[in-house]
Amino acid sequence: MRYAKGHGTGNDFVVLPDPLDQLDLDAAMVRALCDRRTGIGGDGVLRIAGIAGDSVGAAPVGPRWFMDYRNADGSVAEMCGNGIRVVARYLLDHGFAAGPQVAIATRAGVRQVRLEDDGLLTVDMGPVTRSGTSWAVIGGVRQEGLALNVGNPHLACLVDRPVAAFDLSRTPDVDRAMFPAGVNVEVIRVTGHHEAEMRVHERGSGASLSCGTGAVAAAVAAAAAAGEWPDRVAGQSDGPGAWTVRVPGGTLTVIPDALASLLTGPAVIVAEGEISSGWLAQARQPVA
Amino acid sequence: MRYAKGHGTGNDFVVLPDPLDQLDLDAAMVRALCDRRTGIGGDGVLRIAGIAGDSVGAAPVGPRWFMDYRNADGSVAEMCGNGIRVVARYLLDHGFAAGPQVAIATRAGVRQVRLEDDGLLTVDMGPVTRSGTSWAVIGGVRQEGLALNVGNPHLACLVDRPVAAFDLSRTPDVDRAMFPAGVNVEVIRVTGHHEAEMRVHERGSGASLSCGTGAVAAAVAAAAAAGEWPDRVAGQSDGPGAWTVRVPGGTLTVIPDALASLLTGPAVIVAEGEISSGWLAQARQPVA
Repeated sequence: MRYAKGHGTGNDFVVLPDPLDQLDLDAAMVRALCDRRTGIGGDGVLRIAGIAGDSVGAAPVGPRWFMDYRNADGSVAEMCGNGIRVVARYLLDHGFAAGPQVAIATRAGVRQVRLEDDGLLTVDMGPVTRSGTSWAVIGGVRQEGLALNVGNPHLACLVDRPVAAFDLSRTPDVDRAMFPAGVNVEVIRVTGHHEAEMRVHERGSGASLSCGTGAVAAAVAAAAAAGEWPDRVAGQSDGPGAWTVRVPGGTLTVIPDALASLLTGPAVIVAEGEISSGWLAQARQPVA
Repeated sequence: MRYAKGHGTGNDFVVLPDPLDQLDLDAAMVRALCDRRTGIGGDGVLRIAGIAGDSVGAAPVGPRWFMDYRNADGSVAEMCGNGIRVVARYLLDHGFAAGPQVAIATRAGVRQVRLEDDGLLTVDMGPVTRSGTSWAVIGGVRQEGLALNVGNPHLACLVDRPVAAFDLSRTPDVDRAMFPAGVNVEVIRVTGHHEAEMRVHERGSGASLSCGTGAVAAAVAAAAAAGEWPDRVAGQSDGPGAWTVRVPGGTLTVIPDALASLLTGPAVIVAEGEISSGWLAQARQPVA
């Protein structure tokens, strides 16, 4: 089985190219692949499945590729802002997409990804909706925040202290009536003109090095505080509307927009090769 | 650059085959390779360097391969009981050694590794020396232990409680006069006839899933308590002298012997392939 290891700002993935959409990937196999000691290791698996799709004459209609994203615990997820850049990088590197723009189907809908001149990748993260304010108790301290939906729920808390000072090792207490299925909680500090630093407690995976939807939520909250939301100032990632968001694993750029926020950042293929057939046979065996 | 990812009882490694002994591996590159998010990920790097060596007529003299082991922090280490099995597995899988016995040079001397009929690998761990008793304070509780040298220093503490009950998250306090450079600390409980469970705090890397020299130290301490040290009962891994040592990452078998303890356990190649040249170029750049 072919695979690659890749990451975007430290959010790392096992990439499984599957042009014929024939890999049978169950939760146990995902967990085995993502195990950092006895497997390949990663925050999740990105299966890149080919789509047979429709065609008009010889020209294909719609995206040719589907991002089948799974969390390290084996659960299925809709969308991953760092993962989709890694998928686009893989497709472009291997000539599976011509670029510079690639349409990739996800469980959250079709997303467009663009290769920029400087090698970074920009992804249309889709619509962002606001549903008022709420609160979280982080390390014993109550913080007010903006409740945002970026495909998944976020509570974006603007803070005055450096974000490194917050204890995100445990799941923050939140308003369970508002977030019955939990919520991703960000602490965001504006550090300059259209610049912010952010740390996140991701629902289900804890304090992580980076979170694409979290970076979008951070930029929206910062723009709202600056009175710039929901107007997009410019459509380019280096335009005046762009926010630089520093996360523990690197730097992302966000143009917040209610209809289609744009997220720009790096995507790196570290290595690629073949998973050992002996290891696969072992991983496929049911646990006694 | 070719590489493989492998592990022995959860102790995992980036394997770099280097038949011509030409890879220039510095500490920064080792740290980049071992980074679990932005690199391949591992407890260390196993560079397998070819040795030109002497020959008598056409027959080579001495081992053909050197295990250049580096810890994840970039430092050089003498020997690794789990790593050397992974090296042997790689050499045998690729026909670089005929087997079933392979001689591998290490910084601690030449070690013999044997492929067993059941696919496990046995390594001669060399001599074990005892230097009396000492103590460690583990999670606030003082434990007595046997001071042993298995190429590296160990304090092997026999305990009555399940080893899972001990807090090994922090470095235990030890007698600094006896162990000026620190020591690996094991808690060991005898669980049956020639059976023990063991957990370890490794000097420099903390609580780990497995430790080859620690398993040897555990078996020596258990055998000594049973009045069976330093006599080896039998020379086979399933002989009456063998101890089964369960570690968090799996099961190892040890025949303790003052002259040459034998360690038997699994070694798995998970995957192999090529490290991306773009990633390598980035990792080689000096940090600004």
